[in-house]
Amino acid sequence: MKDFYLEIKHVCKQTGARYGILHTPHGDVEVPMFMPVGTLATVKTLSPEEVKDMGAGVILSNTYHLHLRPGEDIVQKAGGLHKFMNYKGPILTDSGGFQVFSLQENRKISEEGVEFKSHLNGDKLFFTPESVIKIEEKLGADIIMSFDECIPYPANKKYAEKSVERTLRWAKRGLTAHTRKDQALFGIVQGGEFPDLRKHCAEELVKMDFPGYSIGGTSIGEPKDVFSKMLDYSVPYLPEDKPRYLMGVGSIDYLLEGIAKGIDMFDCVLPTRIARHGALMTSQGRVNIRGAQYKEDFSPLDPECDCYTCKNYTKAYLRHLYVADEAFGKRLLSIHNVRFLIHLMEEARKAIQEDRFGDFREEILRKYGDKRGF
Amino acid sequence: MKDFYLEIKHVCKQTGARYGILHTPHGDVEVPMFMPVGTLATVKTLSPEEVKDMGAGVILSNTYHLHLRPGEDIVQKAGGLHKFMNYKGPILTDSGGFQVFSLQENRKISEEGVEFKSHLNGDKLFFTPESVIKIEEKLGADIIMSFDECIPYPANKKYAEKSVERTLRWAKRGLTAHTRKDQALFGIVQGGEFPDLRKHCAEELVKMDFPGYSIGGTSIGEPKDVFSKMLDYSVPYLPEDKPRYLMGVGSIDYLLEGIAKGIDMFDCVLPTRIARHGALMTSQGRVNIRGAQYKEDFSPLDPECDCYTCKNYTKAYLRHLYVADEAFGKRLLSIHNVRFLIHLMEEARKAIQEDRFGDFREEILRKYGDKRGF
Repeated sequence: MKDFYLEIKHVCKQTGARYGILHTPHGDVEVPMFMPVGTLATVKTLSPEEVKDMGAGVILSNTYHLHLRPGEDIVQKAGGLHKFMNYKGPILTDSGGFQVFSLQENRKISEEGVEFKSHLNGDKLFFTPESVIKIEEKLGADIIMSFDECIPYPANKKYAEKSVERTLRWAKRGLTAHTRKDQALFGIVQGGEFPDLRKHCAEELVKMDFPGYSIGGTSIGEPKDVFSKMLDYSVPYLPEDKPRYLMGVGSIDYLLEGIAKGIDMFDCVLPTRIARHGALMTSQGRVNIRGAQYKEDFSPLDPECDCYTCKNYTKAYLRHLYVADEAFGKRLLSIHNVRFLIHLMEEARKAIQEDRFGDFREEILRKYGDKRGF
Repeated sequence: MKDFYLEIKHVCKQTGARYGILHTPHGDVEVPMFMPVGTLATVKTLSPEEVKDMGAGVILSNTYHLHLRPGEDIVQKAGGLHKFMNYKGPILTDSGGFQVFSLQENRKISEEGVEFKSHLNGDKLFFTPESVIKIEEKLGADIIMSFDECIPYPANKKYAEKSVERTLRWAKRGLTAHTRKDQALFGIVQGGEFPDLRKHCAEELVKMDFPGYSIGGTSIGEPKDVFSKMLDYSVPYLPEDKPRYLMGVGSIDYLLEGIAKGIDMFDCVLPTRIARHGALMTSQGRVNIRGAQYKEDFSPLDPECDCYTCKNYTKAYLRHLYVADEAFGKRLLSIHNVRFLIHLMEEARKAIQEDRFGDFREEILRKYGDKRGF
């Protein structure tokens, strides 16, 4: 795909972290990057201009959710996701695999695909590797994902083995079904916590020659040491010249761990979701804005932050809006959290280019502590 | 007040409509104007920049609501409403009279003031003409209102008489209590549907020499013919060189009626409230965006509108966001409705200056019909 490729500009001498430019049909973006999530063709509460202004490159949207509402046919008739939601930068869609396997109770997996129920109305749905690609082609994102199985953690090795083989067959079927030349289809490395399965999955996917590779976790969060090992079991078998995307990761320590191990792309609902619940990531540590101590605190949320919220509003105002359940409050808090992570990525890219990402990472972890969920 | 005055530039030869510039400590704005309502120091879902960009002059905020949350002391410590909410244009606060008399069931009116209960937690509260002015001084708006009694419709004449006299005594007490020289305190003409009471109230207020006058309605919506007569009973007794503000009016026919009779300022929650419920004012008539007919309608909400929403999004996208209960949808719909009314005011001002406001009004009413609530 001539419009889509990764140009590695620098590999850090301290770690495996890499800095580069990802070329896409909707513009060039720098990696490593954090991709804000716009589940239903909107990054919750934010306008596309706000998302761009805070330095976002690629944004992510969810195939499963868009299939239910408004349906891929409507998005296609609108001229694709970019036009539908007025986002001029690159967009990525997931395959629905994570939602199907984590949100659904009564699912039936077969070789053909997965039968499951809509979380909205209980309607029976059936996703296959081919039907998912068909949906993603209609949605029209720049980067799309293969349909995969997310296994639980911890998993039975026998089951994990069977699952990896099926995920590989599904990846192949998706690749065969995929016809749009302006979309980059990624293969997804699965295999749970098992080194041999991860290696096998990565190697087989690489043989299929995808333009990029994702690393899937499990359907529930695994402990950090396991998470870290999953990267060690997967990344070394992926080609250096292709983008690597670690799915669903948005906490500071996991992001830094991923970058250090050569990951280029991350996404997570964390910053926007916790923002709507009043939880903010700041250079001074975590802030729960509802706290009574902010009632008369007329300082910015984060004095080190350059976002619209921190430049124009006080904690007292943000607390007031939060307590009064005002939509503008959720928006201001979302702007801050997303910008916080994007800014962290900007600093990380700088550190990589200056061969000091290891030091940078230590400094950040000292500053924020080594806690998941922040 | 040297920073606050109305400069009448032109009176329409067809009607009593007037075009002018209202000078305020936070800038000059053109009248007649529609003032968007920011109840809790935020025009729901919108940023101050968005409100400005859609051509708003003065915005309104509610004393009763701000007294409850976050409390006037916090707003004062923040440096006043302008700084607290980051709005650089002029702000007006109401007196809480309407809320106290329309929202509260168990209120006790005495000469001293009104005892009532918080709608949030049932706490006993007591508002007097002096305490309301004190709150408004702490909030720090450019234009503030006297504490008045809104009587029900229809009202007993005896009661209305007693009420007007009390409203006049309260206006006097408020005027005496008011100390901030940078705020314009308006008197409010009450008197229900009774011509002699309206005249008497207006004349007595004018003797007190307020920098501006409001015309209050009743605590429930009166029929249009009654509404229209209330204007005839009030406006002729008000000085020509002072601004006239008709409170709580936002439907097209009432706005045009008010302008024709010489009103300069209007406010209403209507455009933002109905927008959040999916109801839009458009040049093609009323649109209920949830309608299935918009599922695949890729045209703008209003082809004649120049707002951000109409320039960038389709009905299909707006319907999708509305159905999915996405905050960005409510924001886009609010932007449109507020801009629609502000644009109507712009057109009205042009028509006044060209001595054709009567024709303009007929044309608009023919176009939109003569329905309240639109």
